[in-house]
Amino acid sequence: MRVEDGFQLAEVDPDSTPGAPDRKHAENQLEKNLDELGSLQERLFAESKFGGTESVLLVLQAMDTAGKGGILRHVVGGIDPQGVHVHAFKAPTDEEKAHDFLWRVRKELPQPGIIGVFDRSHYEDVLIHRVRAFSTPEVIEERYGIINEFEAELVASGTTVIKVMLHISSDEQKQRLQERLDRPDKHWKFNPGDIDEREHWAAYQEAYQIALTRTSTRDAPWNVVPANHKWYARWAVQGLLLDALRALDPQYPAADFDVEEQKRRLAAT
Amino acid sequence: MRVEDGFQLAEVDPDSTPGAPDRKHAENQLEKNLDELGSLQERLFAESKFGGTESVLLVLQAMDTAGKGGILRHVVGGIDPQGVHVHAFKAPTDEEKAHDFLWRVRKELPQPGIIGVFDRSHYEDVLIHRVRAFSTPEVIEERYGIINEFEAELVASGTTVIKVMLHISSDEQKQRLQERLDRPDKHWKFNPGDIDEREHWAAYQEAYQIALTRTSTRDAPWNVVPANHKWYARWAVQGLLLDALRALDPQYPAADFDVEEQKRRLAAT
Repeated sequence: MRVEDGFQLAEVDPDSTPGAPDRKHAENQLEKNLDELGSLQERLFAESKFGGTESVLLVLQAMDTAGKGGILRHVVGGIDPQGVHVHAFKAPTDEEKAHDFLWRVRKELPQPGIIGVFDRSHYEDVLIHRVRAFSTPEVIEERYGIINEFEAELVASGTTVIKVMLHISSDEQKQRLQERLDRPDKHWKFNPGDIDEREHWAAYQEAYQIALTRTSTRDAPWNVVPANHKWYARWAVQGLLLDALRALDPQYPAADFDVEEQKRRLAAT
Repeated sequence: MRVEDGFQLAEVDPDSTPGAPDRKHAENQLEKNLDELGSLQERLFAESKFGGTESVLLVLQAMDTAGKGGILRHVVGGIDPQGVHVHAFKAPTDEEKAHDFLWRVRKELPQPGIIGVFDRSHYEDVLIHRVRAFSTPEVIEERYGIINEFEAELVASGTTVIKVMLHISSDEQKQRLQERLDRPDKHWKFNPGDIDEREHWAAYQEAYQIALTRTSTRDAPWNVVPANHKWYARWAVQGLLLDALRALDPQYPAADFDVEEQKRRLAAT
């Protein structure tokens, strides 16, 4: 769901599945679309070898357990790894803290021809920073504008920016955290800090509401994807990626060398 | 085929398929093994979240068209992208040239829990550098020892190093380059420089023979994989990766927090 004027996060039902067929058909589509996704990605990559400057950046934001990992495995994992650059932004290091908040982000931007994926992003600097008061309200206020300018530059330089918030309900998160605690093979996915964050649920929803509406621009709009149903979120995010690539419509580039001459050279070897 | 004392590259038949079942069964195994590979990778990753220091590095070297891209798509592509770091080493930039030859390599080493993949590597500095005389014989001579020490350190610090040379015949390369020239949708994969390199085929085979035997150590041995049959190379490289992960035998780590306490905290939210 595109974030536009008057958007209210609280009105989005995390259980809903807008636009999707039933689960079985959605899962079939996810699988079937891999070929087209692969073909579009290859052409995007091919263009870049002959001077193409276009790239794609998928930004994933969500509360813990919302399913970013599943998107990475089931949507991004279907794409040729040579054409993908995934980066997970963790709590910043001392070196990163010594620079402006976009410094570490700029270093991970996709090169031409590449589909970049951010697992969390510069939006943490207006989300957790707001909720936990890691920055002053004035600094955070300023960051919305800085982000919009930054993303506008990115888009102007040829990067299609797809911003996705995976939206789960508080109850669904509770259930997923419970599962991580119940299953020893899931303990590694759990961190006591996850519950600290959960205790700020309402404040996070508010921080998201503000960030989404302040930074959903025409060039780089936000999409809120209901994510209580994992199959739906995967289907929806694949669809956003496919739409972006179809709009770019990359083409195999024409050779910048004399094909017949190279055939003669090859024959002589 | 493990490179050991007395190894002769010229004696390895690029058409051979040692150890493999027929193509159909090998392709089935490749598909079937994805589950085990995924499970081992997840456990390696999980261990790292609780202090595990182990990682894996797959180094791919080959003549042009030998199928590195196919290995990346069909073997590495089957693994969760969150647990993989692929880096393609191109001709060095001016910044990279200003540093020692391992500088850019060290920056791309896999973190704990990660399967790193090098598409070309520091071996270019003893291969193309020898064939094209980009470095003096003395400098190249010294590099074999530097590489062995570097890799020994890597292994000592917890990285399993899998070095693979995909071995094709000159005729097979000719055919594959011909296909890239014949098909407009493959032109982007062709570079006139590929034929320049091909004209040095014998010198490259000699450079590989020397590099393979000088740097195949007990800790970080070379494997030469016959690669005229793409299905075979993929099956063989997946097998090497599986063997390495099975030997590491990573386990889901025990929680470093009090599970019951966290359950109580969660219930209270």
